[in-house]
Amino acid sequence: MEHKNYDFGLVGLGVMGRNFILNVADNNFKAYGYDLDQEKVDALKTEGGNLEKVDASSDITTFINALSAPRKIMLLVPAGKIVDQVIESLLPHLDQGDIIIDGGNSFFTDTDRREAYLKEKGINFFGAGVSGGAEGARKGPSIMPGGDAEAYTHIKPIFEAVAAKFKGEPCVAHLGPKSAGNYVKMVHNGIEYGMMQLTSEIYDLLKKSLGLSNDELHQIFDRWNKDRLQSFLVEITAEIFAQKDDLGDGDLVDMILDKAKQKGTGKWTSQNAMDLGIPVPTIDVAVSMREISALKEERIVADKLYSRPEPQEIDKDKLIAMAEKSLYFSFIAAYAQGLHQLADASKEYEYDLDMSVIAKIWRAGCIIRSGLLDAISEAYITDKSLPNLLLAPAFVPKVQETMASVRETVAYAAMSGIPVPGLSASLNYFEAYTSSHLPLNLIQAQRDNFGSHTYERIDREGIFHTEWGK
Amino acid sequence: MEHKNYDFGLVGLGVMGRNFILNVADNNFKAYGYDLDQEKVDALKTEGGNLEKVDASSDITTFINALSAPRKIMLLVPAGKIVDQVIESLLPHLDQGDIIIDGGNSFFTDTDRREAYLKEKGINFFGAGVSGGAEGARKGPSIMPGGDAEAYTHIKPIFEAVAAKFKGEPCVAHLGPKSAGNYVKMVHNGIEYGMMQLTSEIYDLLKKSLGLSNDELHQIFDRWNKDRLQSFLVEITAEIFAQKDDLGDGDLVDMILDKAKQKGTGKWTSQNAMDLGIPVPTIDVAVSMREISALKEERIVADKLYSRPEPQEIDKDKLIAMAEKSLYFSFIAAYAQGLHQLADASKEYEYDLDMSVIAKIWRAGCIIRSGLLDAISEAYITDKSLPNLLLAPAFVPKVQETMASVRETVAYAAMSGIPVPGLSASLNYFEAYTSSHLPLNLIQAQRDNFGSHTYERIDREGIFHTEWGK
Repeated sequence: MEHKNYDFGLVGLGVMGRNFILNVADNNFKAYGYDLDQEKVDALKTEGGNLEKVDASSDITTFINALSAPRKIMLLVPAGKIVDQVIESLLPHLDQGDIIIDGGNSFFTDTDRREAYLKEKGINFFGAGVSGGAEGARKGPSIMPGGDAEAYTHIKPIFEAVAAKFKGEPCVAHLGPKSAGNYVKMVHNGIEYGMMQLTSEIYDLLKKSLGLSNDELHQIFDRWNKDRLQSFLVEITAEIFAQKDDLGDGDLVDMILDKAKQKGTGKWTSQNAMDLGIPVPTIDVAVSMREISALKEERIVADKLYSRPEPQEIDKDKLIAMAEKSLYFSFIAAYAQGLHQLADASKEYEYDLDMSVIAKIWRAGCIIRSGLLDAISEAYITDKSLPNLLLAPAFVPKVQETMASVRETVAYAAMSGIPVPGLSASLNYFEAYTSSHLPLNLIQAQRDNFGSHTYERIDREGIFHTEWGK
Repeated sequence: MEHKNYDFGLVGLGVMGRNFILNVADNNFKAYGYDLDQEKVDALKTEGGNLEKVDASSDITTFINALSAPRKIMLLVPAGKIVDQVIESLLPHLDQGDIIIDGGNSFFTDTDRREAYLKEKGINFFGAGVSGGAEGARKGPSIMPGGDAEAYTHIKPIFEAVAAKFKGEPCVAHLGPKSAGNYVKMVHNGIEYGMMQLTSEIYDLLKKSLGLSNDELHQIFDRWNKDRLQSFLVEITAEIFAQKDDLGDGDLVDMILDKAKQKGTGKWTSQNAMDLGIPVPTIDVAVSMREISALKEERIVADKLYSRPEPQEIDKDKLIAMAEKSLYFSFIAAYAQGLHQLADASKEYEYDLDMSVIAKIWRAGCIIRSGLLDAISEAYITDKSLPNLLLAPAFVPKVQETMASVRETVAYAAMSGIPVPGLSASLNYFEAYTSSHLPLNLIQAQRDNFGSHTYERIDREGIFHTEWGK
């Protein structure tokens, strides 16, 4: 083998790693892979692609010696201790100025810790979330890197080549220092949780109320995907309804168990939003619903204990139109909440994020890509410090136009006994955020009444306490 | 002064500490207070109470020497570093077997750390949440202690004397080892967040829809408090609506700013529930709403950008009856979620909690006390391992009877543009928890489609993956 002339190293040749390295090679960078598992090393060479540009080994010295300086080594290994173990195994072989890029969903404080640790040793560390799944990794993902801005210049040409393109613009950008990239990817996944939950509710609503077949559902989602709901998640939802079951006569979607798993990024988004004090109720409830879904055995027992109303009669076309508006509105609400969290995290953690750039690099490649993101990016170009997407002049009419239908959909679902927690959370988020007065004056009164926690007044400055009931 | 003959020591003579120590003295235990602030020491002696039994000092040696062995020293100081500082200042003066009780809302992992640290030094450490506010501390709070069971025998007579009584039973019990008490208090506060949010929504709904005066609201809540909604929070809500404004001509509630503060226990409950994988959406959204309330300036801007429907016409008595059922149901939902979290935490952290005992000690003294808790306690006596309150035979008819009204209330609020996030979250929690089938099969299909995350099937065992769209 030739020494030191590979442009890019990749550790971890699972599905994501294999696809990513082949993507790098397709773009005419020489890429060298490394995995302790010789089978995965061998498997790489049996894949299609620009195999002249790619090689791999299960020997770390061979791997390290193959890479040109400064070495650019991306890790696509499971988040957690394995990342630390891989870093430790690489460290003795590295030179000052080499670059390690963690492409997994590491928790952002882990990334900060690793970045500081490696900086002391003269190694540049990047947390770079990669979204787009296996297919995205192969054909062009959205990449969200954070780390040292100067060191990024070494990675930039490769990342820009391999990333998805939106009208020619690569869906990657240096987002900020330290864990900025991991943080953005975490919130991306939180929004993803919200959008998936919302999609599942609309499916449930249409199916229970109208008794639609999977074929009809396929056609509805397919049609929506060609209009303003155009998005990866609506696209694959249409695809899912069309999938036949290999193991039976029916449609596959009906045979899948309704217990959703999670890997933690949605939960982290909610938990950290609470630390920041930023409301993301649509994301919160998407996390809750995965938890409730896991309680299948209890749900079966509970279902037998309670009676439920029949879905109310409703015109088919009317409900489908209401559902479209509800999904459109609630997608906007999910984006609004996630972006609000990012804007606040940017201040708290000194990421100095450019929200318009984040929206731009989400326009293609990633799981939450949608036709909305171009307009969202424009909204943040117009107003860099937009407090909330719901306040963007371009979005006010989009949202306003849907609200009557959203309210009617939530009311219809409530009367019909159909759970729509994500849509309800989105509606209530909107109603509360757009209320100049909320009834939390009562909560402040209660807190002062039982705990002497004091309150503020609307008519004068100061902090007040009352001896209630006297 | 007499040496070593005081039964109980108390550090921190703020409102809570002062009231608690006077409560101890009222119960004929000799109690000695300590505060660095001489003014607070002096203030104690000007309060009414059994002053022969109580003394205090700003000198730590005097304080330590006043206490009988083993010393029982309760801290009522703000949670956080101050607790550690106080512990360090006490340590050099303590003897083996002495007892320190943290009565604040410390985060439970802090309590575990302190307990282990002090155990090494031969000191018994208790985390003992105290609920009931200033008045509860004075007249009888609910106390939730966790720590060493044997050492608890030294504290037990004092705590049982000072605690609130429900039909003669003291509202205190040794709940479990280590941080069990702090954890239970944390979830108590999470439930409290939920119940306060729910109360505020019902207030908002009645006021906006029917234009009720504060006097009418007072009468409604006062009447509810005499029936099945009997609870401390409904009681003080009635009291709040009757409070005149000292600084003006109107009612005080209308002059209070609608930005609710929080001290973290609600947030911790939600965050930890997510770590456990337990759904507590009513509590989550109560936290979110406090956050949204803080965004007052943005809300005022947003309010002007969007139009909102007028509240729909509705019969006054009908809506009041719907509201009562909604509040009753959603209180049950808040308890159900918190108790579910406690049951799971008991396994995860090896607290070995007795849920019926927890419900019992919440029946008086604490902020979430209500007429429901006696029945809740009974439900857990009947079935020690009840997975969820909604499954308790005694609760099924109570809940079933309200559901038509709850659904109608949520629908009415949605159509009227009135935010009811807590009630909606409670309803959707119920709808989802009682659904043997949820649409999260679609989410599993999506996850497998884009991320090869695999899925389970309803018709056979195993883990499956599909090449979607092929």
